[in-house]
Amino acid sequence: MTDLWLIGIGTGNPAHVTLEARQALRDAALVLVPRKGPDKADLADLRHAILNACGSRAPVAEFDMPVRDEGRPYLERVRHWHDEIAALWTRAIATARPQGPVALLVWGDPGLYDSTLRIAARLDPRPRVRVVPGISALQALTAAHAIPFNAVNGAVTVTTGRRLRDFGWPEGTDTVVVMLDGELSFQRLDPAGIEIWWGAFLGLPNQLLEAGPLAQAGPRIVAARAAARARHGWIMDTYLLRRR
Amino acid sequence: MTDLWLIGIGTGNPAHVTLEARQALRDAALVLVPRKGPDKADLADLRHAILNACGSRAPVAEFDMPVRDEGRPYLERVRHWHDEIAALWTRAIATARPQGPVALLVWGDPGLYDSTLRIAARLDPRPRVRVVPGISALQALTAAHAIPFNAVNGAVTVTTGRRLRDFGWPEGTDTVVVMLDGELSFQRLDPAGIEIWWGAFLGLPNQLLEAGPLAQAGPRIVAARAAARARHGWIMDTYLLRRR
Repeated sequence: MTDLWLIGIGTGNPAHVTLEARQALRDAALVLVPRKGPDKADLADLRHAILNACGSRAPVAEFDMPVRDEGRPYLERVRHWHDEIAALWTRAIATARPQGPVALLVWGDPGLYDSTLRIAARLDPRPRVRVVPGISALQALTAAHAIPFNAVNGAVTVTTGRRLRDFGWPEGTDTVVVMLDGELSFQRLDPAGIEIWWGAFLGLPNQLLEAGPLAQAGPRIVAARAAARARHGWIMDTYLLRRR
Repeated sequence: MTDLWLIGIGTGNPAHVTLEARQALRDAALVLVPRKGPDKADLADLRHAILNACGSRAPVAEFDMPVRDEGRPYLERVRHWHDEIAALWTRAIATARPQGPVALLVWGDPGLYDSTLRIAARLDPRPRVRVVPGISALQALTAAHAIPFNAVNGAVTVTTGRRLRDFGWPEGTDTVVVMLDGELSFQRLDPAGIEIWWGAFLGLPNQLLEAGPLAQAGPRIVAARAAARARHGWIMDTYLLRRR
């Protein structure tokens, strides 16, 4: 039975790595690293920089990420994509024949809006999975702005851009954190009474932050995101909304 | 102006500490550490163990935590308690006269269901605040159970035991994470169709985990929590509920 270690490494800042994650990267017998398209070369480079900074000497097996089939309905497309990635992991592991644990570096935390746990569950035979928690974008965001996630005795809903578009502001909560939102879906909300805290490339040298009442800060964020995306070829961002 | 560093240190496992947090604990000129009552001596000892493990040589100023005035309404009581702690920090800093940043070790992450940011905002003159993110109980829980926080494109509500008792299952979400729940408030829910993942002392050698359908796992958790609390004199726990 393979030991598969899903290791949260934070949002790209090598200083986000925990002592547990660093030790795990040193103890792994093989590290699987996805090769992204050329526009995300920064991300592949960051993974290698983190491995080096941690003193990992494990061999690295690179694999090409499959392309998502945009023709299918959303959930089916995600499931199919996870199946394909699981097949690529299986092949990479079979080729490398590691004599010990296989590690994957996961941006943020392996439990929060990440697919690796679901992909791991598709491997046959099923591996023994260890999860090493990491600093998530949600925490990098609230830390960068030095704001609390929640109000006193308040509830927070963590949701996706897709859900915010489909269902609007979630019921019964005064704070919403939005992940996986390539469309800045806050633009669909009535901005009255809402404040926003936004961050991109959180923890990296090119980190961007914006905050303020949504009516004023929203357009600034739309412009800043478009400019940063054009400059870097990709962007990772997230935001928190709070109703007064 | 004082530099005040709120440093997330995870849930007690020294390996949860990030490289950024470790460096910050080394660079601080003073560390403020609350003395808890004798029943929470383990926690004060853990803080000192983490400082030592990080190689911090900063002087430590201990202060006694005020007692919460249970006679007042909840929010007023919390505000009053924060005012009192802010006064204690001010006195401890004035006595120690540090020639550099003042650090506080925060369990979990300083943004997630923690008071230190709100207390820092009460200091006069207002300090320059830096937040160093840390592994939260929420992440230690999902990592220990090797489960994802969210379903695919799913929303998660993070809430308090008090809110779960007052308002029941939050609308529009299939996953609920409950923090600050000294009463295991899931006992007020109809358990049909709900699964629970519970953890106490997450990341520590005495970590406890339970999981399963709420109808069966709920009573096991109630018993395990009471036994552990009696044994240690205190307990820190959290749980995730998912509706099928």
